[in-house]
Amino acid sequence: MATKPSIPKGTRDFSADIIVKRDFIFGTIKEVFKLYGYQPIETPAMENLSTLMGKYGEEGERLIFRILNSGDFVETFREKDKADLTEAWNLFISRINKVGLSKVNFIELVKSYQDKNDRISKLMFNYFFTNMKVIQSFILKNKNHNNSSFIKYLNQYRFPHLLKLLERSILNKTELLKGFSEKGLRYDLTVPFARYVVQHHGEITLPFKRYQIQPVWRGDNPQKGRYREFYQCDADVIGSTSILNEYELIRIVDDVFTKLGIEITIKINNRKVLTALSEYIGEPDKIIEMTVAIDKISKIGFDDVIKELKNKGISDAAIEKLTPILLMKGNTRSKLEGLSVFLSNSLVGEKGLQELETLISLLENANILSEIELDLTLARGLNYYTGAIIEVKSKTIDIGSLCGGGRYDNLTEFFGLKNMSGVGISFGADRIFDVLTKMNSFQLTKKQVADFLVFNLGKEFIPTYLKINNLLHKRGLSSEVFPDHSEYKKQLAYAKSKNITYAIIIRNAELEKNELNLLNLITDENKKILMRDIDSFNFSG
Amino acid sequence: MATKPSIPKGTRDFSADIIVKRDFIFGTIKEVFKLYGYQPIETPAMENLSTLMGKYGEEGERLIFRILNSGDFVETFREKDKADLTEAWNLFISRINKVGLSKVNFIELVKSYQDKNDRISKLMFNYFFTNMKVIQSFILKNKNHNNSSFIKYLNQYRFPHLLKLLERSILNKTELLKGFSEKGLRYDLTVPFARYVVQHHGEITLPFKRYQIQPVWRGDNPQKGRYREFYQCDADVIGSTSILNEYELIRIVDDVFTKLGIEITIKINNRKVLTALSEYIGEPDKIIEMTVAIDKISKIGFDDVIKELKNKGISDAAIEKLTPILLMKGNTRSKLEGLSVFLSNSLVGEKGLQELETLISLLENANILSEIELDLTLARGLNYYTGAIIEVKSKTIDIGSLCGGGRYDNLTEFFGLKNMSGVGISFGADRIFDVLTKMNSFQLTKKQVADFLVFNLGKEFIPTYLKINNLLHKRGLSSEVFPDHSEYKKQLAYAKSKNITYAIIIRNAELEKNELNLLNLITDENKKILMRDIDSFNFSG
Repeated sequence: MATKPSIPKGTRDFSADIIVKRDFIFGTIKEVFKLYGYQPIETPAMENLSTLMGKYGEEGERLIFRILNSGDFVETFREKDKADLTEAWNLFISRINKVGLSKVNFIELVKSYQDKNDRISKLMFNYFFTNMKVIQSFILKNKNHNNSSFIKYLNQYRFPHLLKLLERSILNKTELLKGFSEKGLRYDLTVPFARYVVQHHGEITLPFKRYQIQPVWRGDNPQKGRYREFYQCDADVIGSTSILNEYELIRIVDDVFTKLGIEITIKINNRKVLTALSEYIGEPDKIIEMTVAIDKISKIGFDDVIKELKNKGISDAAIEKLTPILLMKGNTRSKLEGLSVFLSNSLVGEKGLQELETLISLLENANILSEIELDLTLARGLNYYTGAIIEVKSKTIDIGSLCGGGRYDNLTEFFGLKNMSGVGISFGADRIFDVLTKMNSFQLTKKQVADFLVFNLGKEFIPTYLKINNLLHKRGLSSEVFPDHSEYKKQLAYAKSKNITYAIIIRNAELEKNELNLLNLITDENKKILMRDIDSFNFSG
Repeated sequence: MATKPSIPKGTRDFSADIIVKRDFIFGTIKEVFKLYGYQPIETPAMENLSTLMGKYGEEGERLIFRILNSGDFVETFREKDKADLTEAWNLFISRINKVGLSKVNFIELVKSYQDKNDRISKLMFNYFFTNMKVIQSFILKNKNHNNSSFIKYLNQYRFPHLLKLLERSILNKTELLKGFSEKGLRYDLTVPFARYVVQHHGEITLPFKRYQIQPVWRGDNPQKGRYREFYQCDADVIGSTSILNEYELIRIVDDVFTKLGIEITIKINNRKVLTALSEYIGEPDKIIEMTVAIDKISKIGFDDVIKELKNKGISDAAIEKLTPILLMKGNTRSKLEGLSVFLSNSLVGEKGLQELETLISLLENANILSEIELDLTLARGLNYYTGAIIEVKSKTIDIGSLCGGGRYDNLTEFFGLKNMSGVGISFGADRIFDVLTKMNSFQLTKKQVADFLVFNLGKEFIPTYLKINNLLHKRGLSSEVFPDHSEYKKQLAYAKSKNITYAIIIRNAELEKNELNLLNLITDENKKILMRDIDSFNFSG
């Protein structure tokens, strides 16, 4: 009868030793967010599908986990179906009442359902179409009678038949989804943030600087380092167009990774420059194809990017114009200058370059420890960026992006609020965890404070054990009494498995002298101390 | 086009001021858990339905949020259906091959599907039953031929027909659920904990003391103070039967509420005593009905409990025996003595009373600040308790249970692991939040450290603003530069809305003297300090 226990693929259990490490990462990020005046918000795990849909592209949308409506949803759906058909039928009957009994009128009426796309109209059309002959013969036989006998006939013989047909009809996918699911799990923190800003518009003061550290869920195919449940750590400012915000976010990135001890390169780009580039090469309509392709340059290399550009229908002339720009070398300053030559005729290009110039000037005077690199091939797939684009890579470990973000001008427009420019970054806790693991950097998370196990070596000592335990608790020191009177060895193994610092051992010998045995489990050092000294003894972790 | 933004009913957005208060509660609970040697675990939001089902009773199960399988689930389901039918068909054919062609054999074979309850067997039975005459006439006509012509006939004419029927057949609710949903959202933290213990049995050392603070989801009808997404804060020990664990959990409860400043009564009871009571009154089979009814005594009163007991079919004689026990007054000691008279002939009763006696003796010597009350009417609905039952109420604010728990002997048995007794408690953060709000106790959460807004009063000052900002950050003080050069009033309003302590104001006048204006926004006090003193100035929150 026992169920072999497991968890859904792509999800994880976390044990204490992993949680300590993850909390070190979350804590570091949170601390820096707070230092810069960002305030936390939390949003529900479930969002309405209407909030989530139309924001992530077809690809992303497929990955949203949908939640079944609660309650007896199949029953509810069937009931609604029946009610819909009854309503449609009543309308049909009232129309017959209006147009009067005749073959032509009836056919016209049935035809009016032909072009409608809803389930009920389709069903009615098919039903009458299939049964047209029988019904027409009724009309012919009864043409001298009035309408009411026809309506009686329809109500009595045809409607029950139709209802049965409806019950038996197979629901298609869209219908099922509509009836069964109106909520989905949070896919990222950006769309819920936009929804939050619009929904709470009256309560928040602009610019609104928020951070949010919560899990998101994506039905991605699980693979190494990719999970179906993972945390995002986002900071965004909304309601300010100042480049000081981009500057501040990059400082945050620099601070976080400095605190974590990870050397990074911060790549920056600007979506307006990409727009200008697509215009400069004469392919303004292909900007998405162009950016998606050049975004892959670090993964698949220059030659394959050129191939992909060709495949996407970008002309040879355009590729020729693009090539020297993609291959542009040199430092950020010289790249900026080079670009301004190419894009000198473009208004949007000028604007983008000016934004980049402002940001880079601020950063040059900022004592940033990370390397800053202008990378024109950086696009970050996401279509909602409109200005700065930012991405962070480890300098020593090749593992993909550790953090990314950018400016978006239109995100709240989805929810009816215009002219709210925002800029944000998102840290990937799992990747950072992997980098720190590979760097063997988690010694940072070792505990600073000693903790204790009071060994349970006999029922008669329990009052003493509990007293010692309480005294340690009063000092704010973590301590526990082993609950069962059991072998010394077993209790020692327990203490070691929990990485406990000190064992406290009290038997008759100690009790008689009012002292206790303090065994340091790390150094194996053994000390006797008087019980009354427990209040003031200097333990160290 | 704009979607009016909202969130699913029963869920909540949390803003910074609420999060600070909630974190105060979570932080207090966590700190105490750690003090007693409990270690954190985290489990996924989604669990397999096989983990969740059969654990919460019919009522609870209805409230589990189910997650739709990702991908093209209708298609997948249909494909699986087809594969299942094909497999069943092949087995059917191989059986015909074995038994040989005859009317009797064929009928026998078809009959073997009659009692099976799965969708495919039912379909096959119905199909052959409906088409029996045609098939039998084939058998009669071909009885001189060998089996292979019959099999050919079945494969060629009958199987395609059956497949079509399958496609048209209506999925019932259970089938739909199976095909569409295999995962559900976490309903509590206890079942995932039991699953965790079994799944990670080899990695954990017993007794295993874990705490877990995570949200759970229930499709309850939202009402005041009840949400569809809410946090539970659980601590459990598994793998030890010692009453020291119950004692420790009650100490934890006492510590947490003392730290939170909430006066409480801790009610305790024992399931074994309830079992003995049901035997004593002669209704051992009605223990659930009895406990459910008497559990309501504080809500609906004694008379209505008696009515409910009658309605549940508990005899008048039983109710008469139960009445004096329910009405027993006096302190915990005298109640225990009274009970031991009633239950002196019951083994399970003796055991329960002994457990209570041990626990109460430990508590009497423990300097517990909370009131401890033996409450025989305490049952806490949940059927999995087997020993101690604990519940916590506020002494001053009538709001229901703030915390509850008990001992369960069989929880991991669901997952195939026997003899793992556990005991745990669960804090309800939302109720505690409401109590602290009503007590006006959140002044405790006021910030201890000053924070700063550097006013942005001109582009020319930005390098200075950024410098000051950095110096404050280096001191670990939260500070931000207002990103846009805008009106003084607007920036002041921003600072006030964020409850920022200090405004830093620098214009030409200040810059010339290398000083800054420090405006305390709480006291309205204004100070001039030298910029170089920012490193050492004594700010206070």
